[in-house]
Amino acid sequence: MAILVNIPNRNIQKLTERLVLALGQQDVFVWPNVPSPEDVDFALVWKHESGTLKNLPSLKGISSFGAGVDAIFADKELPSVPVARIVDEQLSNSMAVYVTTLINSHKLRLSEYSQQQALALWKPRSNRKGNKVGILGLGELGQQTANMLVSCGFDVTGWSQSIKQLPGVKSVTGLAEFDNLVSTSDYLVCLLPLTPQTKGVLNRTVFTKMKNTAVLINVARGGHVVEDDLISALYDKEIAQAYLDVFDIEPLPEQHPYWRTPNLTITPHISAVTNLDTALEQILVNYKNVKSGKPMINLADRQKGY
Amino acid sequence: MAILVNIPNRNIQKLTERLVLALGQQDVFVWPNVPSPEDVDFALVWKHESGTLKNLPSLKGISSFGAGVDAIFADKELPSVPVARIVDEQLSNSMAVYVTTLINSHKLRLSEYSQQQALALWKPRSNRKGNKVGILGLGELGQQTANMLVSCGFDVTGWSQSIKQLPGVKSVTGLAEFDNLVSTSDYLVCLLPLTPQTKGVLNRTVFTKMKNTAVLINVARGGHVVEDDLISALYDKEIAQAYLDVFDIEPLPEQHPYWRTPNLTITPHISAVTNLDTALEQILVNYKNVKSGKPMINLADRQKGY
Repeated sequence: MAILVNIPNRNIQKLTERLVLALGQQDVFVWPNVPSPEDVDFALVWKHESGTLKNLPSLKGISSFGAGVDAIFADKELPSVPVARIVDEQLSNSMAVYVTTLINSHKLRLSEYSQQQALALWKPRSNRKGNKVGILGLGELGQQTANMLVSCGFDVTGWSQSIKQLPGVKSVTGLAEFDNLVSTSDYLVCLLPLTPQTKGVLNRTVFTKMKNTAVLINVARGGHVVEDDLISALYDKEIAQAYLDVFDIEPLPEQHPYWRTPNLTITPHISAVTNLDTALEQILVNYKNVKSGKPMINLADRQKGY
Repeated sequence: MAILVNIPNRNIQKLTERLVLALGQQDVFVWPNVPSPEDVDFALVWKHESGTLKNLPSLKGISSFGAGVDAIFADKELPSVPVARIVDEQLSNSMAVYVTTLINSHKLRLSEYSQQQALALWKPRSNRKGNKVGILGLGELGQQTANMLVSCGFDVTGWSQSIKQLPGVKSVTGLAEFDNLVSTSDYLVCLLPLTPQTKGVLNRTVFTKMKNTAVLINVARGGHVVEDDLISALYDKEIAQAYLDVFDIEPLPEQHPYWRTPNLTITPHISAVTNLDTALEQILVNYKNVKSGKPMINLADRQKGY
């Protein structure tokens, strides 16, 4: 009866300390140190190496250490046990705040005024026109982001696999509505899960359809964007601005052309960071559920990939 | 029976066109062109020159062309007729969005990341600590700002002349609570009306009490801030950052030391701009009310000064 923490390349000291405190030293294994694989009935993972979850004969459940499960389902040798993810109201709120702040900063022209201040230049302008926000993906994060944008006065439409009921938010689905949303949005926000179907969804075809004044915000996964297509679209002014918080390779390598692409603003994956307390609570519930044969909470759907 | 538009030094072409459209050419006088002063029963004013509203024997009401009435009550020769102001839900929303965006940008360290991007530097940091927002002034603008900050997860206390009932917002009043709020806030937002009592309220005494990590945001009137005291407080790092949108003299003169003060961010009075449609609607209602002997809506209190 043990939990395996399989989270490579991260500082997980606080996390393991807290797990040891809750479960005892003997029940917490930290990859790659697995003294008795047959004792592992639960795995807590984030961007684990493919194949490192097999050969755990007692494994009954896997939990992501975040909202995303794409790196888990990408593992072709993933054992066929249920997978859970963290559903964190706080995480959704962080995401909503981050996206809303970027959109409002752009609308208010804050970076323009910052440049004017350097020149002691007083030049008030009206806010940028354009109030239409298209959100791709209306999961937990997308829904809360939509709500916050509505409360700021934006006209918000969400595109998702299935129609959702959200006060003040238009919900659409299907390919025709995708094209329509992409063509009409002043701000296009990507909050889709990363699946084989959504990989590369933000590509040349989409950028060509978008307004020249439109702003792209990707806070989902780097894999949603075809990098060369976005760089061309920004150089060619097919779209006005992009804000990226997520990248195929993180940290974004120093030589990457993104750093120097015009009208591209980069933040280092800060948009929604898992809160340790909230995550631990759900992890411990699921560890207990797995041990007592109950279903886990916040299950991901392997079929859908999220 | 005529309305006098007394709004010097502003482009008021659209406004007068709309008034003429609604009332007819013969009923709209534009200062300083007043062919028959005895016909003026209503004045629409913004930063009018003191003394230019006297000698209008039929005047029955004055409306500000914005939320503020401080420049009206500053006129020592103001006729003793009722004064109204614009109450604009949209205006309150603009203010709330502006203040919330500044606070969140600071908390998310967006300008730090912008500097890092110039160096191709990937250095994620946790959000700035400090969740306590103190709002001085809980009028229309203060209330909506408080609500929006609460929905973003901030711990909001509002200080005002009288206690208000706002869900999720702590309301305080009195001098001891003022000192307490100033000393404990991570973000201090000034949304007070400008009156003889509040002039210079943000001074050395306040800055000394504030936390070294605290951020000041003034979106009310330039006169609330003692300029030299703020400049010293920023140079001496008594407070961490100030955002100013309003100034004693606007446009802020090119030689003003504010432009070059460290950790001072300037925007050119853009935080809440009167929406012409909303304002016109209320102005026309009040013009009609005045002509028919009914009380005006959205009256300001001459005793209180706002």
